[in-house]
Amino acid sequence: MALVVQKYGGTSVGTIERIKSVAKKVVDRHKKGDRLVVVLSAMAGDTDKLLNMAREITPEPDPRELDVLLATGEQITIALFSIAVKEMGYEAKSLTGYQAKIQTDNHHGRARIHDIETAPILENLDRGRIVVVAGFQGYDSEGNITTLGRGGSDTTAVALAAALGADICEIYTDVDGVYTTDPNVYDKARRIPKISYDEMMEMASLGAKVLHIRSVEFAKKYNVPLHVRSSFHDQPGTLVVKEEPSMEKVVVSGVTYDKDTSRITITEIPDIPGMAAKVFTPISDAGIVVDMIIQGSSGEKGLANLSFTVPKADFEAAMKIVEKISREIGAGPVHGDPNIAKVSIIGVGMRHHAGVATKMFNSLSRANINILMISTSEIKISCVIDERCTELAVRVLHDAFNLDREPTE
Amino acid sequence: MALVVQKYGGTSVGTIERIKSVAKKVVDRHKKGDRLVVVLSAMAGDTDKLLNMAREITPEPDPRELDVLLATGEQITIALFSIAVKEMGYEAKSLTGYQAKIQTDNHHGRARIHDIETAPILENLDRGRIVVVAGFQGYDSEGNITTLGRGGSDTTAVALAAALGADICEIYTDVDGVYTTDPNVYDKARRIPKISYDEMMEMASLGAKVLHIRSVEFAKKYNVPLHVRSSFHDQPGTLVVKEEPSMEKVVVSGVTYDKDTSRITITEIPDIPGMAAKVFTPISDAGIVVDMIIQGSSGEKGLANLSFTVPKADFEAAMKIVEKISREIGAGPVHGDPNIAKVSIIGVGMRHHAGVATKMFNSLSRANINILMISTSEIKISCVIDERCTELAVRVLHDAFNLDREPTE
Repeated sequence: MALVVQKYGGTSVGTIERIKSVAKKVVDRHKKGDRLVVVLSAMAGDTDKLLNMAREITPEPDPRELDVLLATGEQITIALFSIAVKEMGYEAKSLTGYQAKIQTDNHHGRARIHDIETAPILENLDRGRIVVVAGFQGYDSEGNITTLGRGGSDTTAVALAAALGADICEIYTDVDGVYTTDPNVYDKARRIPKISYDEMMEMASLGAKVLHIRSVEFAKKYNVPLHVRSSFHDQPGTLVVKEEPSMEKVVVSGVTYDKDTSRITITEIPDIPGMAAKVFTPISDAGIVVDMIIQGSSGEKGLANLSFTVPKADFEAAMKIVEKISREIGAGPVHGDPNIAKVSIIGVGMRHHAGVATKMFNSLSRANINILMISTSEIKISCVIDERCTELAVRVLHDAFNLDREPTE
Repeated sequence: MALVVQKYGGTSVGTIERIKSVAKKVVDRHKKGDRLVVVLSAMAGDTDKLLNMAREITPEPDPRELDVLLATGEQITIALFSIAVKEMGYEAKSLTGYQAKIQTDNHHGRARIHDIETAPILENLDRGRIVVVAGFQGYDSEGNITTLGRGGSDTTAVALAAALGADICEIYTDVDGVYTTDPNVYDKARRIPKISYDEMMEMASLGAKVLHIRSVEFAKKYNVPLHVRSSFHDQPGTLVVKEEPSMEKVVVSGVTYDKDTSRITITEIPDIPGMAAKVFTPISDAGIVVDMIIQGSSGEKGLANLSFTVPKADFEAAMKIVEKISREIGAGPVHGDPNIAKVSIIGVGMRHHAGVATKMFNSLSRANINILMISTSEIKISCVIDERCTELAVRVLHDAFNLDREPTE
């Protein structure tokens, strides 16, 4: 008799019919004897509808009250789902974030979970009930409703699994697992049966949309095995687990891409201390997140080039700031390129295999893809390229590292 | 500096524009120095939308979970309203039923308020905030969300006013007060500036839709002055207060009608003890509420006629039950008439004025309206008549008691 936390996303509970079909799935599992805690998102589109209502009043709604508003989305699904389970003759009990005792800090819209009192859930499980918890929400020390931000329901599920000591946390979504790359870009993409937390975190932060990075961090911290599965059929999915020795034999596990990036380069920066701070302080003050930063010599006496990437939506604003700074510090012309993309290869095996970077650069080069910037970590290599080459680069790298083939042990 | 509880109904907060306009009204009042607690209903139509979603799953949704679902309606309006107030630069704080500490019994869908801890509201008022409370909802001793049933937000407002010792409870609605009769039926209908709790309760139970009877009961019990006003303009409205000596000078305060009634008559009932119980037990077991009951002699030896009224929706079901019973107890034919209505006159002055009933009967008779049943209480007389004569009867009675004229002191 396993203790299982399941999470269903907005698409999985997007209509009354789907809610009923998920309820049936859950009841079937319950009948097999598992103890089930089900975490639900709002019905697909509902959160946006609520957000738009608030934005009809003001573009910047008060954060506390916005959380009160948004939290209704999940409250609706847990109620409808519990009604569906009970209609089938089984016991269910819905719990809002408050009722499930999910305590967070008071950062509305991006709250972090501090603690979960497990007594209410355990008591309901002991009575044979399916416990249905609203994802994405909690409450702070003053009893205010909080929400956890994007991907919050995944985090709720993982946190509950950690607090309850669940055997597994199953994330049901509209894809059937984590793939070696986006199957829409390359039809040779292969489902990865098992992947480490670290690789999954890199994949999530580099563009794979299956799991939110915070939920994977949480799972790693508390060593909660994650199982990513489709809510529409019964395929095996992907297990996300602690790194195992055999995983290092796979050099590259996946290829990701991210088109939501743009590049800005300041040329001929006087090479005196404090220049980087002068450039990046006003950018971060404007709420713009900088991803890659590369400083190189421009080949002339004491002058340097500085390139960095920002999300496409922030490109215009960042350009304005940088052009102003460039004049102030006496640097040269500023070049901007909004039409770039980032492709990355990820794998824990990189740590012990030489030549991975070389292979990546050669493969791109042979396909006539020019590399504009490079950044690396212990388990990933990212290259910035022309946006138009994105799909080609993904396919070239997928082939180069034989990702269409099952790794041999 | 008065402490004022205001309640706005679903129509008053039915769109974002209306929410903004009510927020402006409330802020203007706040600026004058009053301490304000605002109780809101769900946006018009939202509760029905939620109910329909649940009914897509099952015609009889689990009551606990239905309350979790329905409570989201008011949570949405309190959040949007508070966002609007804060956008205008004033302090507001929304409180759900749970956060406002509105404790109820555990009768889901028709819970009664047991107690309200006023500390959270008073603390927010002391900080200069407008406190915005979700109407219609509370929580039981186990922390489950409950709802109060039809007219629940009125009850929330009155209960809060009682608990807080408010100076007044203002009920804002889509009409501008309580009228001597329905202005849609008779254009001579006059707004009543002041009316007693007892008269208001009779009006509410006899068909006037302005206030829910439970909220008036509550107001009477705790002596909370009610002020019924329009949310769309600034007219004086109607005060509902403790009976004052001058009120008895007005013989009749209002005329109401109720078309949602039908009559069933069992003839030739053997006049032996226990017959009434035999008839009414299965009817009440079927959940049918009987209003008027009149037993009369049919003029023959030892046989009686029994007439009673039930809501039109229950007519067919009640007829079936009664026809079966009639055979079992050896009574005569059963007559049913679904096309009847009830007209009533109400006034605390009746207690000390003779001839009111006679005047009512004569007025109807002169208009050729046949009276089918009569029932009276200390402050009201109701007559059952042919449904087609309803509007005529209302006008005749309104004229007979000079309700178009201001009462003279």
